[in-house]
Order: sequence, then C-alpha cells, then structure tokens
Amino acid sequence: MKATGPIPAGYFAVEGELVIGGLTATALVGQAGDTPLFVYSSDHVRLRIADLRAAMPPRLAIHYAMKGNPFPPVLALMNSLVDGFDVASGGEVDLALAAGVNACVISFAGPGKRERELEQAIALGITLNSESEGEVQRALAIGQRLGIAPRLAVRVNPDFDLKGSGMKMGGGAKPFGVDAERVPTLVNRIIAEGAEYRGFHIYAGSQALKADAIIKMQAQTLALVTDLTEAIGVSPPHVNLGGGFGIPYFAGDEPLDIRAVGDALGAALDALPFALARTDFCIELGRYLVGEAGVYLTRIVDRKVSCGETFLITDGGLHHQLAASGNFGTVIRRNYPVAIANRFGAGAEEVASVVGCLCTPLDKLSDKAHLPRADVGDLVAVFCAGAYGASASPANFLGQGPAREILV
Amino acid sequence: MKATGPIPAGYFAVEGELVIGGLTATALVGQAGDTPLFVYSSDHVRLRIADLRAAMPPRLAIHYAMKGNPFPPVLALMNSLVDGFDVASGGEVDLALAAGVNACVISFAGPGKRERELEQAIALGITLNSESEGEVQRALAIGQRLGIAPRLAVRVNPDFDLKGSGMKMGGGAKPFGVDAERVPTLVNRIIAEGAEYRGFHIYAGSQALKADAIIKMQAQTLALVTDLTEAIGVSPPHVNLGGGFGIPYFAGDEPLDIRAVGDALGAALDALPFALARTDFCIELGRYLVGEAGVYLTRIVDRKVSCGETFLITDGGLHHQLAASGNFGTVIRRNYPVAIANRFGAGAEEVASVVGCLCTPLDKLSDKAHLPRADVGDLVAVFCAGAYGASASPANFLGQGPAREILV
Repeated sequence: MKATGPIPAGYFAVEGELVIGGLTATALVGQAGDTPLFVYSSDHVRLRIADLRAAMPPRLAIHYAMKGNPFPPVLALMNSLVDGFDVASGGEVDLALAAGVNACVISFAGPGKRERELEQAIALGITLNSESEGEVQRALAIGQRLGIAPRLAVRVNPDFDLKGSGMKMGGGAKPFGVDAERVPTLVNRIIAEGAEYRGFHIYAGSQALKADAIIKMQAQTLALVTDLTEAIGVSPPHVNLGGGFGIPYFAGDEPLDIRAVGDALGAALDALPFALARTDFCIELGRYLVGEAGVYLTRIVDRKVSCGETFLITDGGLHHQLAASGNFGTVIRRNYPVAIANRFGAGAEEVASVVGCLCTPLDKLSDKAHLPRADVGDLVAVFCAGAYGASASPANFLGQGPAREILV
Repeated sequence: MKATGPIPAGYFAVEGELVIGGLTATALVGQAGDTPLFVYSSDHVRLRIADLRAAMPPRLAIHYAMKGNPFPPVLALMNSLVDGFDVASGGEVDLALAAGVNACVISFAGPGKRERELEQAIALGITLNSESEGEVQRALAIGQRLGIAPRLAVRVNPDFDLKGSGMKMGGGAKPFGVDAERVPTLVNRIIAEGAEYRGFHIYAGSQALKADAIIKMQAQTLALVTDLTEAIGVSPPHVNLGGGFGIPYFAGDEPLDIRAVGDALGAALDALPFALARTDFCIELGRYLVGEAGVYLTRIVDRKVSCGETFLITDGGLHHQLAASGNFGTVIRRNYPVAIANRFGAGAEEVASVVGCLCTPLDKLSDKAHLPRADVGDLVAVFCAGAYGASASPANFLGQGPAREILV
C-alpha cells in the first residue's frame, strides 16, 4: 500500500457522493455529457482569493499566472477577482483578451518571445517582462516602427533561489531574465530610449510549502529591488515579486501558512526606503489560486487482477494528468489525492492501483492506493487537478483527445 | 559540455544545410510556412522497412503501431508498406480508416477500451487484443447484440520482460493482458461462445538496442505460445510477438543488429511444433519504423548569456518534444541528437544550451551541447523526432499550440 495525498479542504459528501459546487459527481458528469471531466469550483477559487487577500498586506496586488489554468470560464472568473494577469505567449494574450481582460493589466514574461508576439503586445499596451538585452533591442525597434513607447519591465535573474521549491527559477545560469549586475545598464537604456519603464519581475521558484522559505525569498527579492533601484537612480513604478506559493499534493505535505507570509511581507514593505514608497507591488500566482479548486473525474471501465494485484482501469489517464502520473518535473512518483467519487467518505476496503486507458506503463494515476471497493462504472476523483492538468498534458496521445471541462 | 546523441544515418548537408527529402531545412520551413516544424522523410521510412524485411524471415508480417506517429500522411504511407496496423483507441481507429487502412488488418490493444470503442471495433471486424476477462465478456455481449462474431485475440501478460528495454510491459503485475495461467480458460470460452478466435498478443517491452535481449524475449514468447497452444488444444490463427526494437537516442547508443534478430527468429519459427505450422506471426513496431525518419526544426529567437553560460532560445520546446526534454519516462535527462540545421556539418565552436520558449526550467532541448556558433534566426534540428513527438507532447501548454508537420 502506498499513501495518497491529502484531499484539499472544501470537498465533502452528500449521500455518499463527492459534491462540487452543490452538484454530485454523477450529476456533474451528466451535465458535462461524459467522462473524463475536469470540474473547477468557482466557490473554491473565490474563497481562496478572499483568504489570500485577508492574509496579505493591502498594498500587495494579486495577479493570476494564467498558465496554471487557461480555461476561458476560469479566466473570466479570475478577471473579476484579481488585479492583473501574467501571460507567457501570444496565445495566452488572445485567450485573456477574449475573456475580457484589459490589456493594461497584462504582463508578458517568457524567454522566447517571437517578433509577432512582441509586436502584438506593444500595440496593445501590454507590459513586457523583458528577458534579455536582445529582446529589449527588438522591442525598442518595434516601438519605433509602430510609433508606440513600449511598456518595458526587466525580468531579473536573481542570484538566490526559493529553498524547498518544486521548481527553481533563480540562483545560477538561467534562460530567464537578465543577470542582476547587468540590469542597471539595461534599465537606463530603456529609459534613455524613451520606452515606458515599468519596473522589475523577479521569480525565484514555485511550489514551496514552507512559509520561512517564501519569507526569506521575498526579503531577498526586496533587498535586490532596493539595490537595483539605488544603482539605477529611478524608482520602479511596479515590482512583480513572483510566486512560489505551493499546494499540498502528497502525503505529509502541509498547507502553506499564508498568514505568516503576509505578516512578514507587510512588515518588509513598511520598511522599504523612500525610493520605493510609491512603487506598486504584486505577487503572481497560478497553481495556488486554482490548483485545489479542480477535480478530475474519470470512469472505471475495467477492474482486473494481475499477479494478485488489483487494477482499476479508467477512461482517463496521463493524457490529461501528466503531472499526477509522475511524468512532469518529478523524479520520484508519488500519489496525488484520489478517491472513489461515488463512494466519497466510505472507508478503505482494498488496495488497488488506478491506471489510465493508455497502452503504456507510465499511465498510472494512483499506485497501490487504499480505497473503498470500486467497480466498472464507478467514478474516480483525482484532486489538485485545477492547475497544470488539462493544458499541461498530451491530450492527443494515442488518439484520445481532450477531456471535458466545466466551471461550477 | 555534455554529449549529444548520435545523428541517425541518412542525413547530410548540401552547401552547409541539412537536407531532408531533397530539400534544405530553410526550404522545408518555407514550404511549411513557419517553425516549429516536424519533417518526416518518406525515403527514410521506405528504406527502414525494406532493410527490416530483408533481415526478417519472410513468414513474419510487419505491423505499424500507429501510436508512434499518427500524422495522416504518415499513415497513408505506412498503409502502402506494412501488413497491418495496431491501434490503441477508437480515435486511432478513425485516423487509420481515414488514411485508407482496411479494418480487417487492424488490431486494437489497450487496457481501457470503452463500450463504444468495443462496439465500433466489432462492427468493423477489427481484431480486439482482449486485455481481461471482463473485456471479453463485454465484447461477447456486444457481438450478440449486433449479431456479429467478434474477432478476439487474447493479450497475454508474460511472466518475463524485455531486458534492457526502455519500458517493461511484462514480468509481474500489469494492467495489460491476462496472466498466462488464466489464458487457456479464457480462450476456450471465446471459442465456445462462438467468437472468432484470433490468437495471441504478447508485448514484453519496448526500446531495446541489444539483439541478444530481443532474441531471448522472442524465444520466450514463442515458448509461451507453444505452451498455451498445447494447453488450449487449438492452433492460434495469428500471433503478435510485440515489438521492442529500439533506436539510438543518446551518446554511446548503438543501433540494433536486426540481422541477428532476424536470423534467430527465422530459426525459431522453423523449429516450431506442428500445431503452430499454419499460424501467422507478426511484429508490431512504431518507433523503429518512424523515429529516425523525423526531424524537429525550431528557430532561435534569442541568444543570451547568464552567469557565463550561453542559451539559445527557440520558438519550440517541450510542448512538442516532451521526451527530448527529458520529461517523459526518463529518470536521468540526456541529450537527444541536435544540430544547427543551417550550419549542418560545421565544426563545433562553443558550448550552448538549447531551450524552448516556455517559462519553465523543464523546457530544455539540449543541455550544454557542443555546437557551431548560432544566432537569432538560425534553425535548430532535433533528430529522432519521428515517433512520440508531436502527438505525445502537451501542445497547448502555455498557449502555444501544435507544431506544423510535413511528410516529404
């Protein structure tokens, strides 16, 4: 038997069935038409953002990193709840605009921005988090050609990382941002060339669960911003402090203490020098805002025994849940939280592995989990499916195609 | 510096540019309209299959496992070159039929076949490689309802695996197939219920480069088939011996010696007992037929230095090349074969990392490779991109969308 991750708060059973947004899993599948299905809870997102705002200092803006979940109804919901959107491609710009997001609250980071993406962003007044001197050069040339002053922030490659983070984005040679020592020269050039200087973007890592690690990273980030501002001699209008707020996926993971993070950040912002007194600060979060708000529902199509082990074979799989299968950025595979959705809350009766329908041994949704007895037709719920699920998985692998998605 | 994999045979330079199917990389991109682009060479596929047929015993049929590359023009090409198609979903059935494949040469394996997929396959006369007793039960019921005798083979979970294979599909508890000791009972039931008994499917592993390992696996497979046939008392009309033929991806990998495999298999088939004298045998290959026939071309959009390391940032990435980025079924990331396509054959001048345009440190196409000097606008070629590339990667991640594909 192998442990499964902790089921996030906010999910409960009505008459033995998992309920999301007031509807049972069976009713949700009926409404969507079929499995596999991603269900996203707007209540969960709203509550998460309200709790976050209560914990963070009022001065801090909250941006949504839409790479976490670009489902159009989720974007529209987020547009009513957050202060800005962070995008990573021209495709994401299009999706954000279609969801009603105002271009002036969009910032665009990404190390490989194509000429046409720069042009689109500049024409729309989107802030570019510039990743290199070359990119700034191209943006300035496009601005000149279009007769528009590009809105340019500089993404800084910090010389520190986020300890304990799932993905380190700083501390050494990186394809992201400009090494800190070259930033003052670049910013002075941006200003001298008549672009609109927008400040800094500093992203040191993601998916951390220890408040101490995030507090330390934010302190280091603010110290770096202070040093850079002093060296440049111009106050940054805006500073994006990055993200890093993680969610529990695996057994033993504890939720991040956002109150501790918010208190420390409030004190740190209060202690900033005069040169940063009028600077706007934000954090950008994707997974933290939507990850726990999503559940992946997939139906059991076969139950079988091989060499004494029980397998529950579903109509879903890694083509929708690459990360849950352990094949995306993880070295050791561990079980996400899973449950039998139509026997939610029932006691565990057997050890079974939940696998997908793909013809590959990689397609494992839960290895040797302790579950209520389940059979063909029952629904499996994989939790923590709201971020980096549908859009971060190879949907067309083996001719399967995408899952359905609904926001309730 | 880290080594890159060996560039497959058949790729050469004309005036300093990589040529595929008589066209330079630049011309190919021009014809397709843009990068990123997968180019598949029909000459390469034809030559590969001709060499394979020359090495294998004439009695052996060759099937294409279309999960490797389901691009419609590739399917149409394969349809003129191979003896059968192995599919893994109803979606793949649709693609094969659209490419002109005759349903009677299709076999369908996969542990999670949905009711509607079984129904479609039975109605079309497709052979089902049955993965469990439950699936056989459902297929028989559907056959009865439709008034059609389903064509049923049994996928056997072998008690051995393919040594040194990249992916083991046998030797222990597996979601695939039926444990060997339960197969005779199941086959007798299939026959008794009036279904058309089609024989066995035995797939022990994939991506092996050692002829000895494949020879041993095929000998074990034939011994298992012999034992099962004796226990059942009925000759199998058809036996699918699986695949396992690998291609070199990484430095130090050597091509598989197919002559040795073919000679041993020929001798083994000649030595089979009378009960298997009229049985048709096939192997099913995907990666081996198309993997080396494909090249992924992506354009450099930025060149930058961070902490003394050079990064070439491209407009492609793991959203098309998940396996090359080291994020699909690999524990330790190693470099695929890469080259600067418009300086093909030029001497290496610097160490540079080739990364994709995604905002994640996972998006690495080649780590610290030794390459000719390249700059913005140059084309990077990633080889061994013909199988498990376009269809096995999260194309929509970060709003990117699919790559272009052409067969030349």
